[in-house]
Amino acid sequence: MSETNVQYTGDGYQAWLGYHRIAPGNVYEQYAALKAITVNENAEVIRTAVTELSRGLQSMLGYEPVVEESGESAGSIVLGTFGNNAIVDRTFAEDTRSAIGPEGFAIKAVKENRSIVIGASTAPGVLYGAFHLLRLMSTGEAVDNLDVVQNPVNQLRMINQWDNIDGSIERGYAGKSIFYKDNRITTDLERVRDYARLLASSGINAISINNVNVHKYETRFLTEAYLPDVAKVAAVFRAYGVKMFLSINYASPLEIGDLTTADPLDPGVREWWRAKAAEVYAAIPDFGGFLVKADSENRPGPFTYDRDHADGSNMLAEAVKPYGGIVIWRCFVYNCKQDWRDRATDRARAAYDHFKPLDGRFMDNVILQVKNGPMDFQVREGVSPLIGAMEQTNQMIEFQITQEYTGQQRHLCYLVPQWKEVLDFETYAKGEGSPIKRIVDGSLYGNRFSGFAAVSNIGDDANWTGHLLAQANLYGYGRLAWNPELTAEAIAEEWIRMTFGGDEQLVRTIRGMLMDSWSIYEDYTSPLGVGWMVNPDHHYGPNVDGYEYSKWGTYHFADCHGIGVDRTMATGTGYTGQYKGPNVEMYESLASCPDELLLFFHHVPYTHVLHSGKTVIQHIYDTHFVGVERAEQLQAKWSELQGSMHEGLHQQVAARLAEQAAHAKEWRDMINTYFFRKSGIADQLGRKIY
Amino acid sequence: MSETNVQYTGDGYQAWLGYHRIAPGNVYEQYAALKAITVNENAEVIRTAVTELSRGLQSMLGYEPVVEESGESAGSIVLGTFGNNAIVDRTFAEDTRSAIGPEGFAIKAVKENRSIVIGASTAPGVLYGAFHLLRLMSTGEAVDNLDVVQNPVNQLRMINQWDNIDGSIERGYAGKSIFYKDNRITTDLERVRDYARLLASSGINAISINNVNVHKYETRFLTEAYLPDVAKVAAVFRAYGVKMFLSINYASPLEIGDLTTADPLDPGVREWWRAKAAEVYAAIPDFGGFLVKADSENRPGPFTYDRDHADGSNMLAEAVKPYGGIVIWRCFVYNCKQDWRDRATDRARAAYDHFKPLDGRFMDNVILQVKNGPMDFQVREGVSPLIGAMEQTNQMIEFQITQEYTGQQRHLCYLVPQWKEVLDFETYAKGEGSPIKRIVDGSLYGNRFSGFAAVSNIGDDANWTGHLLAQANLYGYGRLAWNPELTAEAIAEEWIRMTFGGDEQLVRTIRGMLMDSWSIYEDYTSPLGVGWMVNPDHHYGPNVDGYEYSKWGTYHFADCHGIGVDRTMATGTGYTGQYKGPNVEMYESLASCPDELLLFFHHVPYTHVLHSGKTVIQHIYDTHFVGVERAEQLQAKWSELQGSMHEGLHQQVAARLAEQAAHAKEWRDMINTYFFRKSGIADQLGRKIY
Repeated sequence: MSETNVQYTGDGYQAWLGYHRIAPGNVYEQYAALKAITVNENAEVIRTAVTELSRGLQSMLGYEPVVEESGESAGSIVLGTFGNNAIVDRTFAEDTRSAIGPEGFAIKAVKENRSIVIGASTAPGVLYGAFHLLRLMSTGEAVDNLDVVQNPVNQLRMINQWDNIDGSIERGYAGKSIFYKDNRITTDLERVRDYARLLASSGINAISINNVNVHKYETRFLTEAYLPDVAKVAAVFRAYGVKMFLSINYASPLEIGDLTTADPLDPGVREWWRAKAAEVYAAIPDFGGFLVKADSENRPGPFTYDRDHADGSNMLAEAVKPYGGIVIWRCFVYNCKQDWRDRATDRARAAYDHFKPLDGRFMDNVILQVKNGPMDFQVREGVSPLIGAMEQTNQMIEFQITQEYTGQQRHLCYLVPQWKEVLDFETYAKGEGSPIKRIVDGSLYGNRFSGFAAVSNIGDDANWTGHLLAQANLYGYGRLAWNPELTAEAIAEEWIRMTFGGDEQLVRTIRGMLMDSWSIYEDYTSPLGVGWMVNPDHHYGPNVDGYEYSKWGTYHFADCHGIGVDRTMATGTGYTGQYKGPNVEMYESLASCPDELLLFFHHVPYTHVLHSGKTVIQHIYDTHFVGVERAEQLQAKWSELQGSMHEGLHQQVAARLAEQAAHAKEWRDMINTYFFRKSGIADQLGRKIY
Repeated sequence: MSETNVQYTGDGYQAWLGYHRIAPGNVYEQYAALKAITVNENAEVIRTAVTELSRGLQSMLGYEPVVEESGESAGSIVLGTFGNNAIVDRTFAEDTRSAIGPEGFAIKAVKENRSIVIGASTAPGVLYGAFHLLRLMSTGEAVDNLDVVQNPVNQLRMINQWDNIDGSIERGYAGKSIFYKDNRITTDLERVRDYARLLASSGINAISINNVNVHKYETRFLTEAYLPDVAKVAAVFRAYGVKMFLSINYASPLEIGDLTTADPLDPGVREWWRAKAAEVYAAIPDFGGFLVKADSENRPGPFTYDRDHADGSNMLAEAVKPYGGIVIWRCFVYNCKQDWRDRATDRARAAYDHFKPLDGRFMDNVILQVKNGPMDFQVREGVSPLIGAMEQTNQMIEFQITQEYTGQQRHLCYLVPQWKEVLDFETYAKGEGSPIKRIVDGSLYGNRFSGFAAVSNIGDDANWTGHLLAQANLYGYGRLAWNPELTAEAIAEEWIRMTFGGDEQLVRTIRGMLMDSWSIYEDYTSPLGVGWMVNPDHHYGPNVDGYEYSKWGTYHFADCHGIGVDRTMATGTGYTGQYKGPNVEMYESLASCPDELLLFFHHVPYTHVLHSGKTVIQHIYDTHFVGVERAEQLQAKWSELQGSMHEGLHQQVAARLAEQAAHAKEWRDMINTYFFRKSGIADQLGRKIY
């Protein structure tokens, strides 16, 4: 962290790496035994680990540990990679060592001399081990009996920045870009370094640094005009074990080359990309590869040349393959010029319909990146049936940490429970035991590449994420990508303790707020999985018909009788048929379709009775009244925490929660009024509807 | 017209002043007798008249008339002001001369020597006479028996430009500003001169050159940084008898002065404005005065200081009074942060409620500028009850030539019939015989100042108005301001003949299209006077709920039972009580309220039967289906005119009409679907509703 940032204390800049001073007591005594760091390797990422450990210990314990190259002094943290450090090698038996993958680590407390040894196969593994130890200490865990072996479950744990060179961030709600300013890559990379540190601490190992919508100047990142600066950014991330990717413009051969086509089967185009890849890898030898949004929402792509996504992605994959690079190809492809009168076309079907037929045609260094749901990061939607549907194709899942449709970091919405639901969803792709998490970790089909991607939620706001509590989503995403078996509660608790310290009432209160928040947001926004109902373009605030007559394929079809999208095979768009096994019937049948997705799959009368026993219309009224009360309770709970944290942190969250409570009323009144006017059915409890 | 513009022929740049060559025949013989122009005065505006006559004759007849200072040669057009030209004085008897007001003129054909004499009290009168003669000739009228006396009915015939210094135009649909570029006033004033010529030819005598929303740089027009350039623009208009005004920022003393208040009762503020007025009049001695939008849509105003509109406007009026200047104060004042849940507040009431109590408190060089309707230039709304409600206050009416809510010059909508309806509206302000036109011409109350203002529809598009046929609105506005008794048909016909020549089928066809167009546009857009139902902000295209839950006070309150705004005294907002005499009961009573304003005044069930015999819902369906058919007929009629005009002119209109026909379907389907879904009532004719 830069000097200038050290002064920030009540602003949240330190996020979960503030390493709060530990009060004297049992754990303090344990930790205080650690007086030294022993390390004999000089790899950059290992130096990063040493710096971080020094910093953490000094901050938590109040003294600076000695860093020594060798020696077996008591009370040391020993760091090293297998085969390069005698203590490390001695500490971990061969079976432990062989169980450690490229990014895994082992940690063992050595009672005899009150030391702790961190061993790994690679330098990044050592860094993850160091962060793990620091996490334990900063959450107050005992370390005197440590015997830990961890490997990340997912190979790619990636962040997508949707930052533009002009400093704006598409769907950014926390200020301007930390990467770009005035159409240049920033020269002051201190904040980028601090970001890399946050990412690495949560387990992230890859980042694409520019928006998937690649505009004029960003297209030139692949040219000499920008490449040297791009390489400098890559160097910052490299020190934290984070591999850098670039989003590229499919039409680059036209826009920055002097070609007249971008046809993926054209030999000149293929050669152009090969040469371009060579150039990029010359500047950044460990460059990750390309992220591509093609033939999507008016972006160029292979369709222009009557080629398909396999042709397009393979061409790029071929170019980066000699360097171990990969191509991540987004599946967010749909007709964005739909006619709202056309009820046969269903945007939810689009990704599956486009990509499923191409299974088997992608090179092994292509990964398809599939959004978690078939629509677009709504507060509630079905799980994408494309995930798991392509046995011979690498896939990764895409989440959205930035809260585009979930309150834009003005409302509290802890997203880890939503992501967990998706990851635990049973696809039946290979029969029972085929949850999403086993597909995206590559284990179900034995994929060469796989993992998680997510759109970042940070900007240059002092606290990174606008809403301080939205930091939990960034942290939680990294942790979940590392290990999808972690519970949302456990992740929340880690984050709270690291961010605010260990006051038990505070931990309990904030954990409860986080865990409730998704359901609260869902309560007062669009009901029963129908989605949308937001203002067009910026997507903030209620507008029930905002997308109803648009070209975007996002409709609810509410009339005076009922509401919902019939996606059944029997009478609707047939989308349910894209699922497998029992899921088909579960969604197809009104009797078994879960309430929370009812309107995503079925068009029903307002008087339809849910499994909950309520009618649809009464459910709408009830959840919207209750949602506002619950939003007000969030505010009340937070106010009880005044005095138990830095006043600056408390105030910034209090302000957002007040805004949320007020804005929740807008949602409540607009949604209730809309449906009361439309249905003519009164609230059973006679509450105020306008 | 500049050299460069002469080449434009099929682009519409010449508008109605193309002076088409007249074919040999009866009128040609008559006109061709005119070989000379006799003039002995050298005033700038008279020189303008001579230039225009020369140009017109040359263009229509193919030869250049001789311009001579005196002489009584046969076949001369003699121009002059009374008392300065012997021929003029001899031609017009004393009673004729005394009937000619400051801008009036007399024209007389002198059979003996086949001359035509134009006489006036002032130079601008001479110019109007010249344009009148040219109009007669370019519409093919006989001139051998001329004996005309005309005075403009309205004193102020003003155009408001909503142009911004950055070159944008608020609510502009015909390109960028012709006045500004790159945050400066343009130095090439040729196009402004051509615009002045168009305006003068239609009778306009005043213009405000900047947007009523006065932003940072426009505020500085009153300073040395811009004033010299402003004066150059004034000089251009001066040559055409058009007086220049500026829109000013009420907060100027704060923003460009070094005062800490803009309180209108503060002596320092008053002194600041007096000094500022002196400065402006030093640069532009015949400066018209200030146009002010204050305490309206977030613009600053006297409310900040607990003062009222009379305080605010009088302060400015006092400052310009020594120079004969006037202050035009807009009455578009309403609560633009309304809560949609609040059904008691009615934006339609706002102007009356704000200004009526101030009657008698305004200085005699203040004019209140009142929009024609109480809302905002909708395709159909009631007439503003404020007009005529203030017996002791100068008023002018504000129309909107630019088609903000009437198709944005992508749809054809000839607005003169709408304006005529407003002008002919009987207010009963002083009992029967108190139409709007008698209030705004000052005759009803004997006002010192009064007249017309309207927001311009021109930009730097080659044809000025985007849609070529929208030129008729600019032309028609000027003509109507000159004489509100002219019929919409007659104005249309003049414009058509001057623009396209005199082919009779062409004249009949285009006149029919123009005359039908308002009703067609009304058919397929928002029904029965309810207004709005457009996309927010840009106001183009259908969006039934676009403003329904907004802060703008613009609601339709449609539910599953019915629609409309109850503005009655009995059960509604009481707006009907702002009218006078029989109008109150006419609007208050469902039985007598005109169909076309039904939903503006009443909330009724969809099954309510109109005077037309149709239910409201069936009326909605019918007009929307028919509206599309009629829009398609416009297209068909226009296509019949191919070959009867310059192909360039034909093509540009054909393209717009095609777009209109397609977009009308969007309107039809969205409106019909909305109401079908909401009411559940089927179309009696079983037509396709989605």
